[in-house]
Amino acid sequence: MNDQLDLLNRLPLRDNLRGLAPYGAPQLDVPVLLNVNENTHGLPQEVADAIAARVKSAVAGLNRYPDREFTELREALAKYLGHGLSAGNMWAANGSNEVLQQILQAFGGPGRRLLSFPPTYSMYPLLASGTDTEYVTARRGADFGLTADQAAKAVRDTAANIVVLCSPNNPTGTALGLDVVEAVYEAGEASQAIIIVDEAYAEFAHVGTDSALTLLPGRERLIVSRTMSKAFALAGARVGYLAAAPQITDALRLVRLPYHLSAVTQATALAALDHADALLANVEEIKSQRDRIVNELTSLGLQPAPSDSNFVFFGGLKDPHKVWQGLLDAGVLIRDVGIAGHLRVTAGTEAETTAFLDRLRELL
Amino acid sequence: MNDQLDLLNRLPLRDNLRGLAPYGAPQLDVPVLLNVNENTHGLPQEVADAIAARVKSAVAGLNRYPDREFTELREALAKYLGHGLSAGNMWAANGSNEVLQQILQAFGGPGRRLLSFPPTYSMYPLLASGTDTEYVTARRGADFGLTADQAAKAVRDTAANIVVLCSPNNPTGTALGLDVVEAVYEAGEASQAIIIVDEAYAEFAHVGTDSALTLLPGRERLIVSRTMSKAFALAGARVGYLAAAPQITDALRLVRLPYHLSAVTQATALAALDHADALLANVEEIKSQRDRIVNELTSLGLQPAPSDSNFVFFGGLKDPHKVWQGLLDAGVLIRDVGIAGHLRVTAGTEAETTAFLDRLRELL
Repeated sequence: MNDQLDLLNRLPLRDNLRGLAPYGAPQLDVPVLLNVNENTHGLPQEVADAIAARVKSAVAGLNRYPDREFTELREALAKYLGHGLSAGNMWAANGSNEVLQQILQAFGGPGRRLLSFPPTYSMYPLLASGTDTEYVTARRGADFGLTADQAAKAVRDTAANIVVLCSPNNPTGTALGLDVVEAVYEAGEASQAIIIVDEAYAEFAHVGTDSALTLLPGRERLIVSRTMSKAFALAGARVGYLAAAPQITDALRLVRLPYHLSAVTQATALAALDHADALLANVEEIKSQRDRIVNELTSLGLQPAPSDSNFVFFGGLKDPHKVWQGLLDAGVLIRDVGIAGHLRVTAGTEAETTAFLDRLRELL
Repeated sequence: MNDQLDLLNRLPLRDNLRGLAPYGAPQLDVPVLLNVNENTHGLPQEVADAIAARVKSAVAGLNRYPDREFTELREALAKYLGHGLSAGNMWAANGSNEVLQQILQAFGGPGRRLLSFPPTYSMYPLLASGTDTEYVTARRGADFGLTADQAAKAVRDTAANIVVLCSPNNPTGTALGLDVVEAVYEAGEASQAIIIVDEAYAEFAHVGTDSALTLLPGRERLIVSRTMSKAFALAGARVGYLAAAPQITDALRLVRLPYHLSAVTQATALAALDHADALLANVEEIKSQRDRIVNELTSLGLQPAPSDSNFVFFGGLKDPHKVWQGLLDAGVLIRDVGIAGHLRVTAGTEAETTAFLDRLRELL
């Protein structure tokens, strides 16, 4: 390993990559995987069959480049989101990471600043670095909350070019009030900031939680990003997307690689969107397991954050790493996100959730 | 359209994107498509069936993130290429454009220079711009050839950080001698340049044309990139790959987006690699149509460049645009690459090639 790092560092790497190690966390094969917020309920058989059939019919044409504009997919995504959106408002790429990278390629880069509010999604600083965008941060409150005043002040103080608000936030799980988004958008007027609301987990929010999609009309610098990895149980298919003013999607056309979205990916996503109802039924089941986790953790004397996502972030642990290791030893993998006293767990199936709660009770 | 451009330019775009139009050439639906060097012979039925079956078996697990290391695919790619390569030498991404973008993210960027030799693949300057890498060029000879001395001098003169040699070259079709690659590698020693040989069309080269893969041992700055879009008839599936020293693939692990290659893409590529023999049989058929085009164009008094690819670049036209339009009016779409007196045509099926040659003969 050290020899390999020596060889790597002999290469003419860019300065901001020097000294980094290329080895991410191993993908462990453990009976109960509740560590990366996947959709633990999987694809209903009817949806899996529909995807297989649609891909099969796309295979004959794979010698040709795919529809560069993925028009049918953009139409289906707009129909799914509603809110008066149409294909011209929609964009998609290979995972929401690529969507965000394209936004940074269009609006970030050398001399520009991306603002976010840690603890939040760990890819934001990496995406900034990969596009030579400066990454700046501002603090949340002690309860990991964020108020409209705090957030707007940070935007003005940093004169950010891009702001990313994660709602529901990862790893804390809580949705932001739309007053925060409105205040950030307004505060970004001076620096003409692009405001991204990353709603990867939006479908898991409590009833009555409004999406930032409702704020799009009249706000040309606002982008709402989504993913099919979570509610649509398609983490393996890599489909992220966004809704915004048509000129935003035009800007992304300037930086996307031609034909970036394969015909197989388009077919997979289209078949899943055809079966949104079946997938959203599973979302309800996951939300009930999520609420069960929050209730049980509270009764164990722990402090779970309010969750609008498919995972629960909880504090009150004296030695989180020991609890994490104890769970892993018992075949339950959850996530140590590196925040003192806290861990994060994905809502599992009923059986997986029971396994997690039983082991945790034994460990405490 | 103008209104839409006005709206686009009101956005806080990066300076190097201002004034660009986001509308690429329309994807025309014409009976005979010989414009983008697709594999016109398509997937044999057995290969299409194998892909559909393998994707079907991957669908059940799509709720989980894919193998981030795509280990099985790297093993299969190494086995296909041979030359003593193993999984540690291999890397893949969503099309060779993404492979090249990742190389530029690792080794290019602000303050660094990418050198290439036009006329060549039109994406190189765009990939440079998208990663804030300076794009510099040096001329080829009058016959679009490139000698070892010319190329090495350009590397020294520009102190390039990255050099990309396209062989067989697009749009001219001719393979480079390995003496050019060796000379460029040596000349790049002073600036520690990364040397990329883009062999997208390598499988179509004439018997006896050596691949730069033979030069990899002992050359840690050399990268040979390939694609499954052409010989493997998978343009729609978006799979590009490369072979290089293991430390090069480690460098790419620093910049790739996590899980960049979907489980569906991995399944598609693996099934096709299982049937490489059937696909390479089609390659032989395409080469015979390619040679037929070269012979017929010569007998028509035109000047086709020697082609080691699945297309033919030909000169001797007084009014290329008129010929291009005449062919399109007759339902045959080829490519005007913007070089005086020249056009480029993809080798079609026997019937498509006949249609092209018959129409062309009428037009001349």
